[in-house]
Order: sequence, then structure tokens, then C-alpha cells
Amino acid sequence: MNISKVGEFGLLGIIRKKVKNKDKNIKIGIGDDSAVIKIGNRLAVLTTDTLIEGDHFSLDYFKPEQVGKKATEINVSDITSMGGKPKYALVSMGLRRDLDIKVFDKIYSGIIEAAKKYDIEVVGGNLTHAKQIMIDVDMIGFVKKENLCLRSQAKPGDLIFVTGDLGSSTAGLNLFLKKIKGFEKVKKKHLEPESKPHKVNSFLKYINAMEDVSDGLASEIKHICEESNVGAVIYAANIPVKDETKQAAKAVSKNAIDYALFGGEDFELVFTVSEKNLKRVKGFLVGEIRKKKGVYLYEKGKEKLISGSGYDHFMK
Amino acid sequence: MNISKVGEFGLLGIIRKKVKNKDKNIKIGIGDDSAVIKIGNRLAVLTTDTLIEGDHFSLDYFKPEQVGKKATEINVSDITSMGGKPKYALVSMGLRRDLDIKVFDKIYSGIIEAAKKYDIEVVGGNLTHAKQIMIDVDMIGFVKKENLCLRSQAKPGDLIFVTGDLGSSTAGLNLFLKKIKGFEKVKKKHLEPESKPHKVNSFLKYINAMEDVSDGLASEIKHICEESNVGAVIYAANIPVKDETKQAAKAVSKNAIDYALFGGEDFELVFTVSEKNLKRVKGFLVGEIRKKKGVYLYEKGKEKLISGSGYDHFMK
Repeated sequence: MNISKVGEFGLLGIIRKKVKNKDKNIKIGIGDDSAVIKIGNRLAVLTTDTLIEGDHFSLDYFKPEQVGKKATEINVSDITSMGGKPKYALVSMGLRRDLDIKVFDKIYSGIIEAAKKYDIEVVGGNLTHAKQIMIDVDMIGFVKKENLCLRSQAKPGDLIFVTGDLGSSTAGLNLFLKKIKGFEKVKKKHLEPESKPHKVNSFLKYINAMEDVSDGLASEIKHICEESNVGAVIYAANIPVKDETKQAAKAVSKNAIDYALFGGEDFELVFTVSEKNLKRVKGFLVGEIRKKKGVYLYEKGKEKLISGSGYDHFMK
Repeated sequence: MNISKVGEFGLLGIIRKKVKNKDKNIKIGIGDDSAVIKIGNRLAVLTTDTLIEGDHFSLDYFKPEQVGKKATEINVSDITSMGGKPKYALVSMGLRRDLDIKVFDKIYSGIIEAAKKYDIEVVGGNLTHAKQIMIDVDMIGFVKKENLCLRSQAKPGDLIFVTGDLGSSTAGLNLFLKKIKGFEKVKKKHLEPESKPHKVNSFLKYINAMEDVSDGLASEIKHICEESNVGAVIYAANIPVKDETKQAAKAVSKNAIDYALFGGEDFELVFTVSEKNLKRVKGFLVGEIRKKKGVYLYEKGKEKLISGSGYDHFMK
């Protein structure tokens, strides 16, 4: 049986059976956006994320600098979603031999430019040959204990917020794939995604659970519910989707709400907060955590169980 | 101009121009086997290395477990060569959709098995789709200040040692590529390379400069000389090469000494030591550091400048 039959979730199941952490300094291991390790008197946040040519980007419509920036931003997002601040990066690249030096130069400039924005320093890496361009960034940051945000800390009664509009990155991607002109703003959301630490950093200590929206809102809320052993309802009418995203989705005969729920790479943050702290946070209220298991969508007076999941790299 | 024209060294030059470290906690940045960062009261050693299917291994002759073990061992080797001890790993994998689940399972078992050998815990990672299997391991370890071994610390008059026989991994690879039967011991050196911390751990504080032999002895000594601003002479007759490696090289019409100098993946350690500490260390004495720049090979009464370099992933 090949891996496309079990998908990421199935593979993660295999990994979880093999990995049993024993070291008491490991505060969070596999199963969240980043690992958290106590080193001396500090809490280090470790993450890694990869961009693969043909899967995550194409130089047909990405500028090389945009590819580099994206490789940095997606890792910043994984540290941000833990409540942490990134600090150091290792950059591992697989490169085609026919790649133009100028393209390599610009990709690396993009990596460094985005890193500077967050005061991150590149301290090492690796270069090797590959058939597709592959950029794997490993990032280390730090988090204050009181700011640590985990997937597993959602509680029944918590309200669910997202920090900004969703679906635009997936809409942008589909505009490129179908070679539809116009919609430049929507396309830019796909080409230049940005992490959103500034949207949550002032109220991290009031957040219960948090995750970045890299694989669609439904998928992220499912992760939170699974790790917290709870369920949730999402209010379809409250999901922030811009008009331009709706129009772009229409242009490719799709529904923008589906992009928001099941698309990917918006890199907004989804978090839960206790009702008593409602006024401490800012964002779009999109749902509620509850005891009843399963993630449901409330739309037009009815609730239905969301059975699909987010983008899966292995299932076509 | 494409990247195959400038090779790894050229690309590293581009990177070094872009990366300027400012943070005072960065003790070693780009340019050694691993980065060294002060975190709290500890010195953390950070590294990353990648195996790509078709470039670093083939499932035609590697067992999946061996691929996993190798992915771990090559990173252990990069931390060992700094004088450090590995502790945590993140495992990033790119996988073909047609990959059998059992093969994935065995690769991951190999990663974990090798990790356990060194008391390393896997704390996170990433899974994505790729056309070739890609395994990028990021490893973090720690080093005591007095044990830290850098490429840049070789001094004129230092003696150069290697910890074991060289050339066998490259000989093994070529036996596989040319489909030559037999030579199982030599082939195993390619399939199951192992890091060698036990060969140096008892005398780390007497070592001046150290590096692991991943790209050939000549290449590694060149790195040490460049970073230390010195030169070296290697005594060809002293390079430890096993008879079976010589015979294997002969079977593919090659010279085993060339494999030792310019081949790769032996994962022995090459280190330099002051003459006064000669009796504190163990290994094969293969050369000497001197003021005169350039790395020379002393063979049959003559010295010649080594102009070629080690294995380059981008130059064919």
C-alpha cells in the first residue's frame, strides 16, 4: 500500500508510535507547530518547514526573492503560533544543476531579507543537488513561559478567533494554475505570505490554544480539538473572507468559504480564549469550543460535521 | 551562468556575502560543520544535513533502514566533529506518493534506531511531497567550552591525524554503480556509515582543529587550512587504506588513494594536534600543518600541490 492511501495523518500515526520522548527538558515534542525544549534557563522553540518546487511554488509565477521570503515566513509562522520569537535559522537547499546563479542569489536574498525583518540570523545550512529546488529552513526561537501557546490547551466554552481574512492564498494559487489574468491583490497573498506576530504579541498570555492557518481553518481547528480532547463549531457567516477573494474564487468556479476552510497558506493565526478574557484579544470571532467531539460548521441555521480535512500533501 | 559552473564553493561565497552575523551569542556561524550558539549558560551545537534519493542513496541497493540510519549518522558526525554531543533532532521528509508505507516505516525505524544509539530524541519535523525521497535531519547538541573543536584552530607545526581507514565508502558506491559482486565488507561501509565519537571523545581538549571526513581527506584538510589561514602537507604513504578497499578500487579501475583523498562519506575524523600533545591522542598520523599556503601531497620523494577538491554536488 502506498503512502497516498494514508496521507499525512496516517504517516504521523506511524511516527508517533516510534517516537517516545523521555528527556524531561522536552516540554513539547511531535504534534504541535514547533517543539519546545528547556535549555539552561530558557525555553527554546524549534521548527522546520520545507518548500518544494512544483509543490509549494513554481518559478513560472514566483519571483525568486518571493520564494526565499516565503521559506522564511512559513517558519516564523510556526514559531509565532507557539507564542515565541524566532532568532536563528539554518538553511538547507537542494538545487538543480541547471539553476541560474542569479536565481539562486535572489532566492537567498529573499531568505535573508525576510529574516532581517524579524531580527533572525542565519547561522548555517547545507547545499546539495536535487531534481527540484528544495528549501528547508530550520528555525530556533525562544518563548516566555507565560506566553507559550499550545494546541492542547483549548477548553470547552472557549471562543475561537482568527487574526485576518482567509482563503486568498488558495484563490491566488488557483488563478495562477488556471492562467486567469487580473486579481493582483489576491495573487500577491499567495506569492508573499507573511507571518502575523504583530497581531497577537500584545495579548499572548490570554490565549489558551493557538495554531497558524497553514492548511485551512477546518484542519487547524481539528488539530486543536484533537490535541485538547474537545470539539468545536465554526460559524460560516463569521469567517472573514474578502470580496476580492470571493470574486477570484468565482472566476475559477469555486467557493471562497471552501478555500478558507480547506485551502492553505494564509498564515493567519487561529486561537481560543476563555470568555472572561474576550475583551483582552483582537480578531474575528469564528466559533466556539465545546465538549461534544467533532468539528461542525454552522451554516444557514444548520450544523453539519466537517468530514473533509485540509490540504494533504500525499492525497491527490 | 548555471550553478554547476561555480560549485558548492562558489555558492558558499555568495551566501557568505549576504550573511553577516551580529548577535554576540553566535560563537560559530556559517563555515564550520555546525553552528555554535550560546543559550543561557550552555553552548548549543546546531547542524543540518540532507540525503536525497538518487544522489546520496538508491533503494536499489540500500535497505530502507540503512537510509534512515545514514540520515541520522551524518548529522551526528557533524556535531561530533565540533567536539559536541548530539541531543535532539527534527526530521523533515519529502516523500514520493508511490512510496510503500512499509518502506517509509522502515526508513523512520532506521532514523530512530541510530538516534537511540546516541541518546538522541526526535522532537519534531515535517512531511511533504517530493519527486525524490528527501530526508533532512536537523540536530541540536551541546559542547563543553574546553572541548570545542573548530576548523579555524590549526597552527603551523600541528600534526594531522585521521581516526580510521578511508576510501571504502566511495569504493563501495562504485562497486554498486558498476554492479560488481562481492566485496561485502567494503559495500557495507557505504551502506552503513557510522559517526566516530568514541574515537576522539577521551582527548577532545588536546585537539586544535577538527572536521569529519565527509567529502574526502584532501577537501577536509583544505577547509581546515583555509579557515586557519595555514597550509599542509599530506603523506600519501601514511593514509590508512585497507587492502580490501585497494582491491575494490582496482576492480573498478580506480586508485584507492584517490578515493581517500577525493571521495566522500567515510565519516572518520581528521584533527590536528600540537606536537607537545602528540602522546595524548590516538589515530593515524597523515600529515603536518605549516605556514606555506596550499595543501600538498608528499609521494615518492616529491611534493605536489593538490589542485582538485572533494566531491562537489553541483559539478559533474
